[in-house]
Formats: sequence, C-alpha cells, structure tokens
Amino acid sequence: MALCRHIGERKVIEILTGKFDRLPNMPIPFGDDVSAYPLDEERLIILKTDMLVGGTDIPPGMSLWQAARKAVVMNVSDFAAKGVKPLCMLVSLGLPRNLTVKGLEEIGEGLNAGAREYGSYIVGGDTNEASDLVISLSVFGIAKKGTVITRRGAKPGDIVAVTGLFGKTSAGLKMLLEGFEASREIRQSILEAIYMPKARLDEGLSLALTDAVTASIDSSDGLAWSLHEISVSSNVGFLVDNPPLAPEAKMFADEHGLDPLELMLYGGEEYELVLTINPLLWSRAEDAVKGAGGRLIPIGRVTAGNLIMIETQNERRLVAPRGWEHFKGAK
Amino acid sequence: MALCRHIGERKVIEILTGKFDRLPNMPIPFGDDVSAYPLDEERLIILKTDMLVGGTDIPPGMSLWQAARKAVVMNVSDFAAKGVKPLCMLVSLGLPRNLTVKGLEEIGEGLNAGAREYGSYIVGGDTNEASDLVISLSVFGIAKKGTVITRRGAKPGDIVAVTGLFGKTSAGLKMLLEGFEASREIRQSILEAIYMPKARLDEGLSLALTDAVTASIDSSDGLAWSLHEISVSSNVGFLVDNPPLAPEAKMFADEHGLDPLELMLYGGEEYELVLTINPLLWSRAEDAVKGAGGRLIPIGRVTAGNLIMIETQNERRLVAPRGWEHFKGAK
Repeated sequence: MALCRHIGERKVIEILTGKFDRLPNMPIPFGDDVSAYPLDEERLIILKTDMLVGGTDIPPGMSLWQAARKAVVMNVSDFAAKGVKPLCMLVSLGLPRNLTVKGLEEIGEGLNAGAREYGSYIVGGDTNEASDLVISLSVFGIAKKGTVITRRGAKPGDIVAVTGLFGKTSAGLKMLLEGFEASREIRQSILEAIYMPKARLDEGLSLALTDAVTASIDSSDGLAWSLHEISVSSNVGFLVDNPPLAPEAKMFADEHGLDPLELMLYGGEEYELVLTINPLLWSRAEDAVKGAGGRLIPIGRVTAGNLIMIETQNERRLVAPRGWEHFKGAK
Repeated sequence: MALCRHIGERKVIEILTGKFDRLPNMPIPFGDDVSAYPLDEERLIILKTDMLVGGTDIPPGMSLWQAARKAVVMNVSDFAAKGVKPLCMLVSLGLPRNLTVKGLEEIGEGLNAGAREYGSYIVGGDTNEASDLVISLSVFGIAKKGTVITRRGAKPGDIVAVTGLFGKTSAGLKMLLEGFEASREIRQSILEAIYMPKARLDEGLSLALTDAVTASIDSSDGLAWSLHEISVSSNVGFLVDNPPLAPEAKMFADEHGLDPLELMLYGGEEYELVLTINPLLWSRAEDAVKGAGGRLIPIGRVTAGNLIMIETQNERRLVAPRGWEHFKGAK
C-alpha cells in the first residue's frame, strides 16, 4: 500500500491541492511562498502558514526559545521573499503533556521576540495537546495588486543575486547530527546560523519598492532547490559563476575533505533570499538592499533553457535539483 | 518541576499570552473566539486558528475524511459565533510518515468538502512530517467595525438562547470511549453528532444583521463552559429554566441511569451557538434564524451576579464551570 514516505512531500502536496476547489481568480497560485485573497480593486490580503515540528525541525542543542523564534523566522522569510510586511500573526501550538512550565514560558517569549524582531504582533492562537511539539504560525499582511514578487518572472539575461552566503547550515547540521567537529575559529558562526537564523525582511521590503526584482524565493530548502523552483516556475536556467560560498563553510569543507559546493548548494533553512534582477535596474536594487543594511551579491545570470550550471575556476557542473523534503529527508 | 499537565490548558494560555506584547488598540482581546486586525476606518480583518490533533481530537471510528472536515467545522464555528463569513483558509498539516496515500486523499477531500460546505476556499498551506496527525487551519474574513459579536455584552434581563439541543456528543463519547451501548432508535443520531458536526454559520451570519445579539460563543467546550465564559466576560449570571436537552440524550440517560443534565451540560464539540439576546429584539432574532433554516431556542435569562443556575420541574441546581480542557482532560 502506498505511503506518504514512499511518495515524498512534493507529491503529497500535489495530491492535496488536486483535491481543493480553486478560489475563482485566485491571485497567487498554490505552490508559491504565500497565498492571497483579493481585498478590493487595488489590494490583496497576503496569508502564509508554516509549521515547525519538534521531531524534524529542532536540531540538537536548540533551546525552546530559539525553536519558537525560528518558527516565526520561517514564516516571515516567505513574506520577505514576496516583499510584504507581516502585520500580525496567529500561533497554534501542539504541546506535549510533560512540557515544563519553564519550557512553555520560553516558547511564549521566543514567539514574541520573533514577532517583535520583524515589527509584527501575535494577536491570537490556540493550544492543544500533542505528542510532538508543534508550532504552527499563520501570518497576515496586505499588498498592492501587482507588487507581490512571484517565482514566475525571471527572464534570460537577468542577474541572479542572493542576500547572503551559503553553506554554514550544512556544516552545522553535520556537526549536530553526524558528529563532525569544527575548529574554534568557525564553530560559533556555524552554530549561530542554525540556532539564530534571520529573515531578510528589510531587504525584501526595500527590494519590492524598486521594480527591479523579476522573481524571488527564500532559500529554506537550500540554494539548489530555490534555483530549481524559479527554474520550473519561470521556465529558465541559471549559470552561477560567482558561487556564494560562506568562508566558514569553505574552511569546514577543507578541515574534513568535503566538497564545499555541496555544502553551499544543499543546506537549507538559511532563509536568504534568492532573486533574479532586471540588469537595467541592478544598481537601484543594490542601493535598496544597502539602504536596508544588507548586501545584494550577484552570483550569476538567468539563461535560456532549464539547466542550472555552476562554474568555478576549476570546473563547470550541473546542479541537480535536490533539497530537503519531508517524509523522505534529503533527496 | 511544574508541567503543563499539572496546570491545565487555561493556565497554559494565560502564561503564553502574558508573554506577548499587545498590538496597540487591539480590536478584540486575547481569549475571544476570533482575533482581529484593523484594516481601515470601517473594517476589521478577522482571523482564527484552531488545530485538530489525532491523538486527542479524533474519536474511535471517525474516518480521516470526517476528521479533516471536522477541523474545518471547528474553525468555522467560531466565525459563526462572531457573525463573520469565513472567506478563505490555509491548512497546515502534520502527517505521519506511514499515512497511506488513500488516507491523504481522504484528508484533502474532507478539507475541501468542509470549506465548500461553508462557502469558503482553501487557498494555501503547508505539509510536514509529525508523529501525530495534526490539522491546523487558519481562517480569514472581513467584518465591519462594531459588528463582531463579542462575549462581553450580555446584560441582566437578556434572553439566553441556543441554536440546537445538547447532550448527544456526551452520549456518543460514552459509547465510543467507555463502551456504553445505545438502543437502535437513538444510536445513529448520536454517532452522527460526533462524526458529522455542523457549524451554525448561516444562523450566525443572519443574527449578526439583527443587532439583537449582546454576546455569543460557540459551544465547542460544552454548554456549561460556554455559559461560564460569557458569565466571566460579561460579568453576569444565568438562570436556565428551559434546559435544551436532546431527546436522544434523555433516552440514553434513561437507558443507563445517567443524569441527563450532566450529559447536556458537559459534552463539548457540539458547535451550537450560545447567545444572549436583547429581549426587545427577540422576534427579529428568531425570524432571522428561521430565515436561515435554523431554530433559536430560548433557554433562560441573563441574571445579575455571576451564578449559573439551572431550574427544572424537580430541582434547582448550580452549574459548576467545568468543560473539556487539554492537558487535564474533562475537569
């Protein structure tokens, strides 16, 4: 008998959404980072839900405060990718019976800290008993029609850019789940990437005002998967000739004889934005991100076709569309 | 060390909300059936989240289709109590790895059936791996300011009314969880109350247009608890002199020598509306509910003080504020 673990998360989603009647004139299709409902002639309501589950989404050593804050970051990151402000949120909790009151307080404080860090408020919620710790957030915002950046607008010739470097979360998960060591120099920075991820909200909101971004996604499932999603949605390929490899990930790879590009491509939960930018408006986009206190790193070009290639001094390789997938794990 | 199961759900909620910074000028306080965010001068965004957890919320014999539909009913019922239309919803799922594809399809179909039954659409969501089955819905709507019926407006002299009779779910849970039998005559009707609950959305939407309702709540935690919540929020008491006892619950009580009023008061998951009505506008309210195809049953009066009394031909008794509570169970 076919089970969810045989078919994997992406097929699970396809089966579910295949059962749902479509809202007439749905402003954003299933499968993008956020959902929408038409508010009036000019505006959309933007909605997003994402769930953190203790068993799969909390790495060893992460505190409940950090896990609760991360649940907020996961959701805000999708709003960041679409350039929409998260006005308020609801939290639905599944809590184990034996959770301590101190743990409960940490969860409440972590949720509030996450919401306030991004200028948002928790306005309601619901608590339940569950065997796993479950933190399900739903976030609400308002956007002008036509300003929400989808995954569909990338065009050959556009510049591919990211808001930060990749590879630290791969290295961190190898430390926490597989017992790898890291030198003192890089250890703290790598673990911080895991325990205290940041959503690039200011960057995303500033970019939304520039009209420069043709497609956008967050990198919660890894850089390779994010590129793959834009590739499929926009029907384009990529040539990445300036791989955004974090120096800590490079050092970690050197220390262990690992492939640094593998760490960079197949991490996940990095919450950087992966963007395609109209080259005529590049400096406007760059200035906007700088103005928001961030950096916009060009990593390559959008190409015709649908191949994702990466080019370094030494080699040119095809990037396989792999990423984290529930039910199956990394694939 | 203090654990959540020692303190119970209501204290858990108090601790959590105590950690949350308040949205300035929050239109609806924590603890009401729905949450709100100001949209503009005239309108509020209405938001609600509620989670169904397999281990505690799915009684034996309930299909996955029914469980998924029930998750929608739980959420819509709160919108019904506030008189707000559920425009669209998001679904966040925690699915066990060994869930069958057939089970997954049932969940998708049950969610869609529930949404469409109440004129709503699922516009997005998220899937995750979890050890429990978790169905977390979040629902979105729009209301005119001042039209959302809170729990706070009940006044002595108001008529207390309900949209249906109580006691069948208590009887049904005794059958499913404690092995009680029921005669053929009532068995089907009792199990239907458990497996196919209905949200009183048409009734709630019609009532919201009458200005007759002074306070409203749904009865998901039982009739006694619903009265208690309005009692606390509005600072009033109740005299229930026409107990809304379902005939099937009366027969079930007779068959087993149980107290029928206990079944009526302490069931839960009945999703009837419990309302207080301005007596001058009673017939307007009654007509509105009839026009929506339902019935409005007067069961007593709002009183000064804070006691909840129930009066029958034989006795007058004080209703203890008990109801279902996560982490502790029925208390």
